[in-house]
Amino acid sequence: MKKEGIPAFLTTDFTNVSYLTGFAGDDSYLLLTTQSETLVSDFRYKEQIAGECPGLQAYVRPVEESMENAVGKLLRELSQGVKPKRLGVEADSMTLAQKDRFAKTLDDWEFVPTSGWVENLRVVKDKWEIEEIRRAVQVATKAFEVTKASLRGDQTEIEVRNFLDHQMKLFGADDVGFSSIVAVGPWAALCHAIPGTRRVCEGELLLIDWGVKLNGYVSDNTRTLITTAKPSTKLRKIYDIVLKAQTEAIKAIAPGKKCADIDAIARGIITDAGYGKYFGHGLGHSFGRHVHENPRFNTVSDHILRPGTVMTVEPGIYLPGWGGIRIEDDVLVTKNAHEVLSEKLPKQFEEMIVSL
Amino acid sequence: MKKEGIPAFLTTDFTNVSYLTGFAGDDSYLLLTTQSETLVSDFRYKEQIAGECPGLQAYVRPVEESMENAVGKLLRELSQGVKPKRLGVEADSMTLAQKDRFAKTLDDWEFVPTSGWVENLRVVKDKWEIEEIRRAVQVATKAFEVTKASLRGDQTEIEVRNFLDHQMKLFGADDVGFSSIVAVGPWAALCHAIPGTRRVCEGELLLIDWGVKLNGYVSDNTRTLITTAKPSTKLRKIYDIVLKAQTEAIKAIAPGKKCADIDAIARGIITDAGYGKYFGHGLGHSFGRHVHENPRFNTVSDHILRPGTVMTVEPGIYLPGWGGIRIEDDVLVTKNAHEVLSEKLPKQFEEMIVSL
Repeated sequence: MKKEGIPAFLTTDFTNVSYLTGFAGDDSYLLLTTQSETLVSDFRYKEQIAGECPGLQAYVRPVEESMENAVGKLLRELSQGVKPKRLGVEADSMTLAQKDRFAKTLDDWEFVPTSGWVENLRVVKDKWEIEEIRRAVQVATKAFEVTKASLRGDQTEIEVRNFLDHQMKLFGADDVGFSSIVAVGPWAALCHAIPGTRRVCEGELLLIDWGVKLNGYVSDNTRTLITTAKPSTKLRKIYDIVLKAQTEAIKAIAPGKKCADIDAIARGIITDAGYGKYFGHGLGHSFGRHVHENPRFNTVSDHILRPGTVMTVEPGIYLPGWGGIRIEDDVLVTKNAHEVLSEKLPKQFEEMIVSL
Repeated sequence: MKKEGIPAFLTTDFTNVSYLTGFAGDDSYLLLTTQSETLVSDFRYKEQIAGECPGLQAYVRPVEESMENAVGKLLRELSQGVKPKRLGVEADSMTLAQKDRFAKTLDDWEFVPTSGWVENLRVVKDKWEIEEIRRAVQVATKAFEVTKASLRGDQTEIEVRNFLDHQMKLFGADDVGFSSIVAVGPWAALCHAIPGTRRVCEGELLLIDWGVKLNGYVSDNTRTLITTAKPSTKLRKIYDIVLKAQTEAIKAIAPGKKCADIDAIARGIITDAGYGKYFGHGLGHSFGRHVHENPRFNTVSDHILRPGTVMTVEPGIYLPGWGGIRIEDDVLVTKNAHEVLSEKLPKQFEEMIVSL
């Protein structure tokens, strides 16, 4: 704020508000000045704020006061004599209508659009955040193991999804991290397959992409199970290519590495094997409070990895009409190299074979 | 669009896009001109769009083309010779950053902020939408009945929530409609109680607020169960006040009625009984693709009800330290009066008593 000559900053993105304050609710903004931090919320959250954010200045606006008027009034009070009257706002969150309403109550202030100020802080997780993600991965691992053990040929994708989602909650998830993908055989070739009434026995593989939400943080993993006692040579071959691409890419993860270079390792292995055009997405992405965050492992990202960033590594080969294989782990960039947070999830070919 | 002199309109709100097209995915915009309708999406959704929106013109942008460039290119192609070059945009959805990016690719177009154009259409549900909501309510009803029958004193709020959420999915929900609230005794007095480790036996009531998401539409109900064989006189008295307030308000729902007047009926009954200040929220809200939509039943809304609107009716009395009672039904405004979509959910005091 000082560097940009902005004496006040308004966070309107609820995830950023939660990140900065620890408040888990929504519909609340955080107003920062160089001297103060004020959470602007409403009566529904009064007790929750007191519990979750002890010591934080909070303004609970009465029902009849609009958010814009509340923020305007507070900013005027908190910025008496402050110059220049420039308010930093989040351009990726504030809508045209919000801006319009704010401009009315703060007509003597200049609104300065900013981008990524809080999101850039979120790229590097602190110790507490890493522990939360670690817990989410642990719960996800347990839920997957039970689901894997429970598989029968007559289950539909929806039934497996319901079972898995329930297991995540039984093991302590607040919620699923995102809509779980459970896709049988050929349907696993669709990147965004929606679970349906196809049965596990209808294919020779079952792709499961799932995550846990716990205390505001998520996990994100994929395993492709082999649902036949006699896997085809083709299945084995493609599985091995994906696994090699994934393993080699993970090996290279370390502080100072460029994201595009990590992507290139996996993409090179898949391309050399002749399947380059069947790997149509980036190698992975960061995650934390959202399942998809920046930076990304893709062909163009020149982001340089730093300790504390967590990334998915998830190469895949998708053959229309045949099926798709994707293997996804959660990897923490450490001081010297990396740590696979989901290392307890088996991923060797033999370990993926389930007898129905 | 014609009335406002706007020859082109861009829908950036994903829910509005789904509403207008039937496409259930996200990250896609709908570009309308007076002559054309084009869904602008990306490769991940190609097959899904073909399946969900047969006959709809779709532009699947290549990975290297930004959404803004794609929309700009299409608009130029579709609007050759069209004047004035005015593009209607959704001011409640478009962010400052999006506007900035669009302005770069469409620097000869004027952006006209609009508000509620699609949302206003969504206020009146058509026959198909009402059937989807009816199905969601049916699933919610079944899941609740099983959950009610399964109650034991040693279950925690989280355990009951997990069970209920799972039942919704077993009966066919795509997902929960929102985070279910399960609150024991005194904790039911918090409007946004988060399920915790308190056990059912720790109070004499259990408030459950839950909903189903099915095919893009949600339900929203609340019941307050009595978890003691010998309810106190106070409990009985307050329950009866809330039930009377709810029943009388529902009775009055019909086309042509003003929303504030419906709110006033319930609020009057609760206030006359001496609990007015313990009913701190509006009487209800519309719902559909989101759980909270306009119009609202509150003290100020002059919205006039029309056939096809679905509303919750959910008065409550919340006494800090003692508990809260809320009863919530889903009500459809019909041609002549109304229909309680959740009428199969019992709500008489005696029916709420569960033996643990």
